[in-house]
Amino acid sequence: MTAATADDAPTQVPVILGDRSYDILIGTGLIESAGETIAARYPGRAVAVVTDAHVGAIHAEALEAGLAGAGIRHQRITVPPGEATKRFAMLEQVVDEILAARMERGDIVLALGGGVVGDLAGFAAAIVRRGMGFIQMPTSLLAQVDSSVGGKTGINTRHGKNLVGAFYQPGLVLADTDALDTLSTREFRAGYAEVAKYGLIDDPAFFGWLEQNWRGVFQGGRDRVHAIAVSCRAKAAVVARDETETGDRALLNLGHTFGHALESATGYDGSRLVHGEGVAIGMAQAFRFSAKLGLCAADDAARMAAHLTTVGLPTELAHIPGGVGDVDRLMTAIGQDKKVSRGALTFILARGIGQSFIARDVDPVAVRAFLTEELARI
Amino acid sequence: MTAATADDAPTQVPVILGDRSYDILIGTGLIESAGETIAARYPGRAVAVVTDAHVGAIHAEALEAGLAGAGIRHQRITVPPGEATKRFAMLEQVVDEILAARMERGDIVLALGGGVVGDLAGFAAAIVRRGMGFIQMPTSLLAQVDSSVGGKTGINTRHGKNLVGAFYQPGLVLADTDALDTLSTREFRAGYAEVAKYGLIDDPAFFGWLEQNWRGVFQGGRDRVHAIAVSCRAKAAVVARDETETGDRALLNLGHTFGHALESATGYDGSRLVHGEGVAIGMAQAFRFSAKLGLCAADDAARMAAHLTTVGLPTELAHIPGGVGDVDRLMTAIGQDKKVSRGALTFILARGIGQSFIARDVDPVAVRAFLTEELARI
Ligand SMILES: NC(=O)c1ccc[n+]([C@@H]2O[C@H](COP(=O)([O-])OP(=O)(O)OC[C@H]3O[C@@H](n4cnc5c(N)ncnc54)[C@H](O)[C@@H]3O)[C@@H](O)[C@H]2O)c1
Ligand SMILES: NC(=O)c1ccc[n+]([C@@H]2O[C@H](COP(=O)([O-])OP(=O)(O)OC[C@H]3O[C@@H](n4cnc5c(N)ncnc54)[C@H](O)[C@@H]3O)[C@@H](O)[C@H]2O)c1
Repeated sequence: MTAATADDAPTQVPVILGDRSYDILIGTGLIESAGETIAARYPGRAVAVVTDAHVGAIHAEALEAGLAGAGIRHQRITVPPGEATKRFAMLEQVVDEILAARMERGDIVLALGGGVVGDLAGFAAAIVRRGMGFIQMPTSLLAQVDSSVGGKTGINTRHGKNLVGAFYQPGLVLADTDALDTLSTREFRAGYAEVAKYGLIDDPAFFGWLEQNWRGVFQGGRDRVHAIAVSCRAKAAVVARDETETGDRALLNLGHTFGHALESATGYDGSRLVHGEGVAIGMAQAFRFSAKLGLCAADDAARMAAHLTTVGLPTELAHIPGGVGDVDRLMTAIGQDKKVSRGALTFILARGIGQSFIARDVDPVAVRAFLTEELARI
Repeated sequence: MTAATADDAPTQVPVILGDRSYDILIGTGLIESAGETIAARYPGRAVAVVTDAHVGAIHAEALEAGLAGAGIRHQRITVPPGEATKRFAMLEQVVDEILAARMERGDIVLALGGGVVGDLAGFAAAIVRRGMGFIQMPTSLLAQVDSSVGGKTGINTRHGKNLVGAFYQPGLVLADTDALDTLSTREFRAGYAEVAKYGLIDDPAFFGWLEQNWRGVFQGGRDRVHAIAVSCRAKAAVVARDETETGDRALLNLGHTFGHALESATGYDGSRLVHGEGVAIGMAQAFRFSAKLGLCAADDAARMAAHLTTVGLPTELAHIPGGVGDVDRLMTAIGQDKKVSRGALTFILARGIGQSFIARDVDPVAVRAFLTEELARI
């Protein structure tokens, strides 16, 4: 196992997508040095820094000092933190502020923040002047290992999450692993669910490594850089095979069909359930459902849930404060999920740890029976 | 000159864009037969028909009868007519109605209307579920020869026209030339400005044909189908060379930098100036400006203006009721135009009829002097 030390040169993960290929740089000090990096790669461009009030207050000054030092014209655009920011009204506001700052098509929208900022700012970058430059500077673990990679951008509507958006690849991703030191433990854990997901999808050795080394990932340093790089490489490989999710990119949705339903059932109230916690419970449910269907050993379902529990993640409906309503409510939430194709239900199921697969035409009756059991465990 | 008769099979113009290639069908009766056409090309898909209140009242029933006859589930979504419909609030409403109708990613957004409906509905199709199926059914002359071809979609903001949008190609364009019979003469003329534009850009023979045969184009029948097909072919060729307007697609903007400034200066008030009228004046100005710069013979500028006048189009600022303000206002409007690149002004100028070219770095001082002269002609 080769792992970079925390003060090495950044680890570089290429995302191969023809003329839309780009690099993910993972390492320390990348926020401070971003001005220099951008000046070298994009000479003469202005930068609109989109951030949320939390992240902006902590990290924007260091970024802006670097941009100013490199002679880059820049403008900060601040949105409120939280999932509710991913909506039409905020999109319009960000778009308007980008235009008010007289940004041209060749200029750059830079997302400094978690997945909410990345999804919103990326969508704005995709549509202002039908496509501006775009750089992701993810500051949450979830954003570094998942949302900043692969080009999905978008907002929510009252009909569901991420129902409106664009596939829009960034030109560069700068993942500063130091930035995660200011993230709350709860948010770090939520991102860790996605890290574990890559092991559960198709990399049992990585899952084993996480079981041994998860403390290092939480602490920072070389183990954290390693875990993020492995995760980005895994996601980049899937995205390179299937950019617009017509095929096996859907594997990345392990835990997400159940997870999204739970987010919907809790009204997207982050105080009750954040996205990564929904994914953690959703993955545990995907494994329990697979075990119930006789696809996967019950031991594997227990083992993966045990690791999630060890790091402090929820794995059961009982772990959600305030409950999630009855089975009808959950079924409706699943029926509205974007991954429904022409009436049939699609789930990511597993034959074991690191052996996930796309199951199309899952019988809704079996799902209902499983969820009824799950609710009975509360 | 081979010209289809009005009751021939539709003329087919292919738009060659790799895996996003599609056909434009031009002819009569295409609204009635659309259900059959769509059922054959897109079996099993539902259709959201986006239209405006004018066009919907006249043409939607015939379309819907055909959809119903072909067993296609469909839902009409009606927006108010007029340029003001191309705004965020209406985009959100259309998106919401598409989702409320439970349209999935494989289903189809069909734009039945002029350029306003096409641009708005196309943008909605591009972003709902990150891209649904999309069919253009243009009902104005402008939409048939220009806006429905080439994949530009979008809305306006208070900072300017079409500043937000997507490049999103339709899967099919059905241009029913009969539909134009219900268009007002004023709107037909406005679209004719774009037809003439293709002659002025690089097809002097077509411009000569129009000088001889424009009455036939206005009347309908074979000359109309011919003029629309020549126009679509011309636009398709430019778009195939330069899909995202990084190069010579900009030629299509002949008359548009001045034209957009005039639309802005008249507050996008269609009672004073519709888009095609702005383009007509803008093209006449581009030729007069070219003549003033010594690039083009004054005779050519006079000849093209004479033809526009013959068909009833405006060619002078004096033709705009209510005036357009002073030179500062026009210069500001031009400075905000999207076709400004990093501070320098880009115009489409001409060396003669059918000899247009992209002039980058046009001196703003020369533009100001020219516009001051133009204002003095009022
Ligand atoms: N585009 C994709 O492919 C994709 C993939 C997965 C998830 N997502 C989206 O990502 C979103 C979730 O992302 P998230 O978990 O990063 O949520 P988030 O952006 O809301 O960030 C979580 C919280 O942490 C704060 N924060 C972020 N970085 C911080 C830092 N360094 N220091 C202190 N506080 C910090 C934020 O202000 C916020 O309060 C969801 O909207 C989800 O739909 C998108
Ligand atoms: N996407 C592009 O590449 C592109 C190119 C050029 C123009 N445009 C856009 O197109 C728009 C202008 O298009 P337009 O001129 O078609 O305007 P429009 O859509 O507003 O139509 C003009 C008027 O004619 C009515 N109408 C349309 N078809 C009719 C019919 N068959 N019978 C009766 N009434 C009918 C409409 O209701 C409207 O009142 C502008 O917003 C412009 O920005 C886009």
